[in-house]
Amino acid sequence: MRSEVEYMAARLFVEADLRRGVEITLLGAQSHYLRNVLRLKSGVSVALFNGRHGEWRARIIDAGKKETTVCVQDQTRYQSAVPDLWLVFALLKQSRLNFVIEKATELGVSVLQPIFTQITDIGRTNVERLRAHAIEAAEQSERLSVPAIREAVRLEGLLSNWPQERRVLACVEAGAAKPIAEVLEAVTQEPASNHGTWAILVGPAGGFTRSELDALNKLPFVTPVGLGPRILRADTAALAAIACWQAILGDGQQRPSDR
Amino acid sequence: MRSEVEYMAARLFVEADLRRGVEITLLGAQSHYLRNVLRLKSGVSVALFNGRHGEWRARIIDAGKKETTVCVQDQTRYQSAVPDLWLVFALLKQSRLNFVIEKATELGVSVLQPIFTQITDIGRTNVERLRAHAIEAAEQSERLSVPAIREAVRLEGLLSNWPQERRVLACVEAGAAKPIAEVLEAVTQEPASNHGTWAILVGPAGGFTRSELDALNKLPFVTPVGLGPRILRADTAALAAIACWQAILGDGQQRPSDR
Repeated sequence: MRSEVEYMAARLFVEADLRRGVEITLLGAQSHYLRNVLRLKSGVSVALFNGRHGEWRARIIDAGKKETTVCVQDQTRYQSAVPDLWLVFALLKQSRLNFVIEKATELGVSVLQPIFTQITDIGRTNVERLRAHAIEAAEQSERLSVPAIREAVRLEGLLSNWPQERRVLACVEAGAAKPIAEVLEAVTQEPASNHGTWAILVGPAGGFTRSELDALNKLPFVTPVGLGPRILRADTAALAAIACWQAILGDGQQRPSDR
Repeated sequence: MRSEVEYMAARLFVEADLRRGVEITLLGAQSHYLRNVLRLKSGVSVALFNGRHGEWRARIIDAGKKETTVCVQDQTRYQSAVPDLWLVFALLKQSRLNFVIEKATELGVSVLQPIFTQITDIGRTNVERLRAHAIEAAEQSERLSVPAIREAVRLEGLLSNWPQERRVLACVEAGAAKPIAEVLEAVTQEPASNHGTWAILVGPAGGFTRSELDALNKLPFVTPVGLGPRILRADTAALAAIACWQAILGDGQQRPSDR
């Protein structure tokens, strides 16, 4: 890896393979950002990642008006995965949805699965636009991957085809539930090989309906959890649950790489 | 308390004392909200809280053009306090600042203390405007109190007059730090009388400077904590730390009151 930390003026997600000597042409928003926002010139180094090959230093070799060409130099970090945690969440209005995408990406989820529930009043979403938000948050947070963003599906259908070995923490405000820290700390007492894969499920602004709660309670892979005595907005609940999961069961004991 | 749960069409924070028979005149935004947004008429019940006397049901007795008069009926919840947790955070740009105020209020902090650090590039704030945000979040989250919002002060001065018995979790991305869950879980092993009062400290977007980190490390009441391997924005770090604190050491084992 690099012998000393070299300053890299930007950090960008690319689709291309990353290996020494490859030239990559950045277009559109990325080129605009480097040229017109950061005003970077040829010779300056930037960091690139693609979710597969770790992070690489690349040098700008041509900063043109419409496109910027970089040449990949050397690897600065090996690829590492975020923990296998899904966030399953009812669609929210735009500003809160953007917020959930940004925060869940920073806090480290692997998959974002929007859902429709019985009282979700948002009709559709644009996965490509959400993915752009996730990419920006991944660039900012020094993640080496971008979470997968799935098309929105109905909660009922999702649960009927659920991979049974993936355990679900269902954040519920009403009905019986164990405190989230108690549930997670109990898992840490099991052998690490039993910790398994997880999803956090958060309902819409109005909450799950009684029949949804009843259905969730019957599923063997679902554990209803509580997040304390205050009523949290759906976006707050998603964040709080991810933060607790990462701190107790995820990679919360790791530190950022040296910068 | 109430014998059955009666639907209350809104939940509002007021400054006035709350006891049976008191008439309160709501002005400005609150009156506008009841009359023009919710279109409530005389006879409808709303919930009121003032941070001192619990929550009361009040009936609208006069919905006028400029003001709405309500009459306090009966108490629906006794006063309870949120845990004694301060959030000390470097000033952020407006949209992220609003977000921190909203989320910290929902997640349950008692005091919000904005600070200037060596590289905070925001010059001032408007406490009254921040307080309006906190009130709205408290109304929404069914809190019975609104967090106190202090005037922004310099970090150095704040720490030199710090109440020594209040322990500080300093969220740091660089330098030595223990994982936040490990620190909090260790406290839960102590007798409850030792759990004490706490503050969470979060730096500006650019992080604390080396000299700030050195100074923090020398203070006996400060524990540097890490929030995992990803770089979190300042607002995300504040939220994640509060969520973990509440879940492990705060009131995360409680449930919302029946609605």
